[in-house]
Amino acid sequence: MNIIDIISKKRDKLELTKEEIEFFIKGYTENIITDYQASALIMAIYINGMTEREIADLTFAMAYSGETLDLSELGNVVDKHSTGGVGDKITLVLMPIIASLGIPVAKMSGRGLGFTGGTIDKLESIPGYDTSISIEKFKENVKKIGISLMGQTLNIAPADKKIYALRDAIACTDSIPLIASSIMSKKIASGANKIVIDVTCGSGAFMKTREEAEELARIMTSIGEKLNRKTVCIITSMDEPVGYAVGNLLEVIEVVDILKNKYMPEDVKKIIEELGANMLILAGKVSNIEEGKHLIIENIKNGKAYEKLLELVKSQGGDITYIENTDKFEKAKYITPILAEKEGKITEINALTIGKLSCYLGAGRIKKEDNINPKVGFVFCKKVGSNVKEGEIIAYIYSDDEKKTKEILEKNIIKIQ
Amino acid sequence: MNIIDIISKKRDKLELTKEEIEFFIKGYTENIITDYQASALIMAIYINGMTEREIADLTFAMAYSGETLDLSELGNVVDKHSTGGVGDKITLVLMPIIASLGIPVAKMSGRGLGFTGGTIDKLESIPGYDTSISIEKFKENVKKIGISLMGQTLNIAPADKKIYALRDAIACTDSIPLIASSIMSKKIASGANKIVIDVTCGSGAFMKTREEAEELARIMTSIGEKLNRKTVCIITSMDEPVGYAVGNLLEVIEVVDILKNKYMPEDVKKIIEELGANMLILAGKVSNIEEGKHLIIENIKNGKAYEKLLELVKSQGGDITYIENTDKFEKAKYITPILAEKEGKITEINALTIGKLSCYLGAGRIKKEDNINPKVGFVFCKKVGSNVKEGEIIAYIYSDDEKKTKEILEKNIIKIQ
Repeated sequence: MNIIDIISKKRDKLELTKEEIEFFIKGYTENIITDYQASALIMAIYINGMTEREIADLTFAMAYSGETLDLSELGNVVDKHSTGGVGDKITLVLMPIIASLGIPVAKMSGRGLGFTGGTIDKLESIPGYDTSISIEKFKENVKKIGISLMGQTLNIAPADKKIYALRDAIACTDSIPLIASSIMSKKIASGANKIVIDVTCGSGAFMKTREEAEELARIMTSIGEKLNRKTVCIITSMDEPVGYAVGNLLEVIEVVDILKNKYMPEDVKKIIEELGANMLILAGKVSNIEEGKHLIIENIKNGKAYEKLLELVKSQGGDITYIENTDKFEKAKYITPILAEKEGKITEINALTIGKLSCYLGAGRIKKEDNINPKVGFVFCKKVGSNVKEGEIIAYIYSDDEKKTKEILEKNIIKIQ
Repeated sequence: MNIIDIISKKRDKLELTKEEIEFFIKGYTENIITDYQASALIMAIYINGMTEREIADLTFAMAYSGETLDLSELGNVVDKHSTGGVGDKITLVLMPIIASLGIPVAKMSGRGLGFTGGTIDKLESIPGYDTSISIEKFKENVKKIGISLMGQTLNIAPADKKIYALRDAIACTDSIPLIASSIMSKKIASGANKIVIDVTCGSGAFMKTREEAEELARIMTSIGEKLNRKTVCIITSMDEPVGYAVGNLLEVIEVVDILKNKYMPEDVKKIIEELGANMLILAGKVSNIEEGKHLIIENIKNGKAYEKLLELVKSQGGDITYIENTDKFEKAKYITPILAEKEGKITEINALTIGKLSCYLGAGRIKKEDNINPKVGFVFCKKVGSNVKEGEIIAYIYSDDEKKTKEILEKNIIKIQ
């Protein structure tokens, strides 16, 4: 077997065997196959596609290209994943709820890149919270309190890492077989046996249209089926930011407020009900969606989810007095209101625009190595569809840079008609 | 403009602009664009193709990516090129004839790689012949005696060199747009304004079928037209080796014998008539093919072509006593006859097989850095279609290695029925 023959086959739109896919992934991981050879094969895959069998084999090969985590000792763990969005704090809201319902939560999350945020960056806004605990401590926490959320410390799916970086440099990011196998390989390597995936679609997501999101969902479900990992995909809209807050610390504060049952954004409610109910079904806790949805909301109302959040933060070294009183968090230097320019109805708060501006304010990374500023971002007072009066405050800009605030104020980022 | 957008366009089967193609070639030549990005673009070109306009622009950009030769001071130079073959000594036979007819010949030739030979390797079999004279000396020789044949000493079309090497490693060699632009870019950079190309097809050529050869011919003619370089392509069969000899020195001896009018293989005659007549038409020497063919053969018969060969060899430092008496050449250690195993008609002398075996004997290179042995190869006594008696000598193996000779004798390389 050699890489030139494998490239030729895919170039000619032929189906690769499991062995050929494994040969490529192993060789590329070990730097025997060069970047330019991988690049040619990936472009051929992009253009000529892959069968569902090939995609499953690619996923499996990438999943086992590095370290893997075995969570079987923890029982019926159900993993949750989102394809990313702006203001997407669902993991932080939902996981304490799930844990409070007795389902073990052992989740490794990622950092943000580009306009989408990452759970780990958000958690690190909490003073003391350690996202890089040992695997032993991680498992111990799950056994003791039923939940741990940490960053990726293992060398998980290194083949995926290499291919992901390469795709970015050769215009092959938006390929559904490659996106699906990338997501699923990391989930599988992280020990997930049952997976609920939030496939976001809209301006603030990687999938721009409903059709693309449905195709991605279909492929990931098929991978799950072929690799014996029960997978459920939910498609959610990502045209406006999720909830009201965008920015790491600002989102943590919103999560705390939601779990304290102070308020509940409609979109967040819909997503956590849908995802949560499916997780409960996969875990065997409930037998239908309605029952699941009820339990999810109930454990917010009765305070059990909030208690679980406190336990989580405490067990990972975080200072819970910040959670108990979010006023303790240090705020951004400039908190500047955006006023409605006229009376009318809000027709657009573009998630992509808000994501990019948050990034510009310092909330996100352009390059992997960038530092982020947890304090900056946006807090909206209204959602799309709300009526506003002229001069009414519709959002606040949280910024450490007056010039950037001014620039943003000059843009018309919230459309009213 | 950036390379990712350019890759995206070709990935999506869109037409690249002249500026985008130039941006890629310039960036890749200067190592600003990486191998893996070039690799992705080349694979996209392989799969999605290029319009003739794009191919012409690619050719032009590669031609001007490095040094170029200006031959305008030499007058009406007509270049000749072959897409390569086994025993292909046409340049060495034809160019002295053309020069003897008063058409300036200023030709830079290549070395052999793989199973096909190279004119420069053949010329270097002649003691003293200098293939790396200065450009000044090259032009001076053409002005003085009407002919010079040398190797490539300039940094001609470096973009083509890089892309050519890359294509080999990513299964993108057999793409007609890429082959056509590679050949034409080198011809244009070498100063050719009028070009006659021998497109070989068959087992011993890169184009295996007549259809592929015709498509390549069509594309190169189109490039020539678009870039204002009059180009004529002739398609010739390369199923059996050209002429009787295969191997560097052995071919030089055959060339000398042909130009001395000792004998003329039918296939060589047909090719030199066809190519030569077209060169004479391009040069404005004759107005029709028949007239051209007549002149070509006439100048062999009247000895003028042989005289020109002697002048050529002498002007480049070669020892003409070897040409005058080819018995002076040192021969291979073992000259072993291949006998007809039975009476019948020769049905196949596979050019690819003979090319590979010559290479194995030491006549060719597997890698660019390999040294070659000028003395080894094959001399056939018969062509395909000849009748033979059992035990009759049909060829000689020229070898410096008795073991290899034995191995070859054991193979049934000449088919008789």
